[in-house]
Amino acid sequence: MTSDIPDIVIGRLPIYLRELTRLAEEEGRINTSSHELGKRLGISSAQIRKDLSHFGEFGKQGTGYHINYLIEKLREILHLTNEWDVALVGAGYLGHALAHYHGFEHRGFRISWIFDNDPTKIGEQMDQLIVLDVTKMEQVIQEQHIKVAVIAVPANYAQEITDRLVAVGVRSILSYAPIHLNVPRGVEISYSDPVIQLQRMTYYLP
Amino acid sequence: MTSDIPDIVIGRLPIYLRELTRLAEEEGRINTSSHELGKRLGISSAQIRKDLSHFGEFGKQGTGYHINYLIEKLREILHLTNEWDVALVGAGYLGHALAHYHGFEHRGFRISWIFDNDPTKIGEQMDQLIVLDVTKMEQVIQEQHIKVAVIAVPANYAQEITDRLVAVGVRSILSYAPIHLNVPRGVEISYSDPVIQLQRMTYYLP
Repeated sequence: MTSDIPDIVIGRLPIYLRELTRLAEEEGRINTSSHELGKRLGISSAQIRKDLSHFGEFGKQGTGYHINYLIEKLREILHLTNEWDVALVGAGYLGHALAHYHGFEHRGFRISWIFDNDPTKIGEQMDQLIVLDVTKMEQVIQEQHIKVAVIAVPANYAQEITDRLVAVGVRSILSYAPIHLNVPRGVEISYSDPVIQLQRMTYYLP
Repeated sequence: MTSDIPDIVIGRLPIYLRELTRLAEEEGRINTSSHELGKRLGISSAQIRKDLSHFGEFGKQGTGYHINYLIEKLREILHLTNEWDVALVGAGYLGHALAHYHGFEHRGFRISWIFDNDPTKIGEQMDQLIVLDVTKMEQVIQEQHIKVAVIAVPANYAQEITDRLVAVGVRSILSYAPIHLNVPRGVEISYSDPVIQLQRMTYYLP
């Protein structure tokens, strides 16, 4: 039904959701407008209206958007009405940071399992979790029906871990490994590599 | 001269550079083609040729690209021929992970300074660096002519830190704070928020 909506539109919805949540929770606001939202996000109000129009009519002429209603609708559209259990692979410095990051809460995700292959890390407590042996990864993911994973392993392990995750049903992967990964159709992958982002910006530096 | 090249093209150049470096350093390869590069990156060969054609003629009919030559050219285009000193603000779990991340090396960046406002963190050693008091941030950045910064502070500090960085000459900022930040024209900003990336992907999950 909505498969013809450009991915770039889908990619902006979480940004709208984050800002709306901020407006409601931290500023106690009830209503907003595409104009105000656009100004706060550096996006044109026309773009915001066009993006949201793919999914229905959310605003009213004059009063704009009811924030909590729009938050609820965006959470439905993005499939965030229940929390997704996330498997985190890699318990190094970055895995440690992710395990302790409380920004997942109330935003649709919960890191529920952490795996590593290093005997000195297996059994270690990270926030509320215990690091498990990566040899148990497939079994846990299948039993718990986990669909979302975060990879924080060195580049030379990343493809193998990806293949193993996909084989047992993971369908969304966020990878911090600085390498392109191959996944079959039907699996979404997203990357986070700070150097890639920094290099794009230094192009513009004199 | 090159200001009319779309930002989306600039954003792909670091990905080409990373894969070319991988081909040369880990696989000992001398030449490649837009076809091979595209296949490895899931990008069409026509797109790669078109992107590179903005900057000159890098390939030869038949032999394709000389990898080390193309690496050198891409490093020039992206202003990576010298290493940029980077100021890291925030020495929490994430700052810790970034300070210990060796993926910046040989890719144009060196985290040279770390700042925090927490007395229990100031003076702490992280990898080769000592965490400095954030009250010294402006002075160090001006004296060292630092243009690139990474922000790993909580959301409610991020705009203040951004303003202070920009005021003393920082022109490229990578922010891990889960909030949109306002910067003046001429300053580049890039964001890393794992939840934003995960939420885009769960849209596609049944």
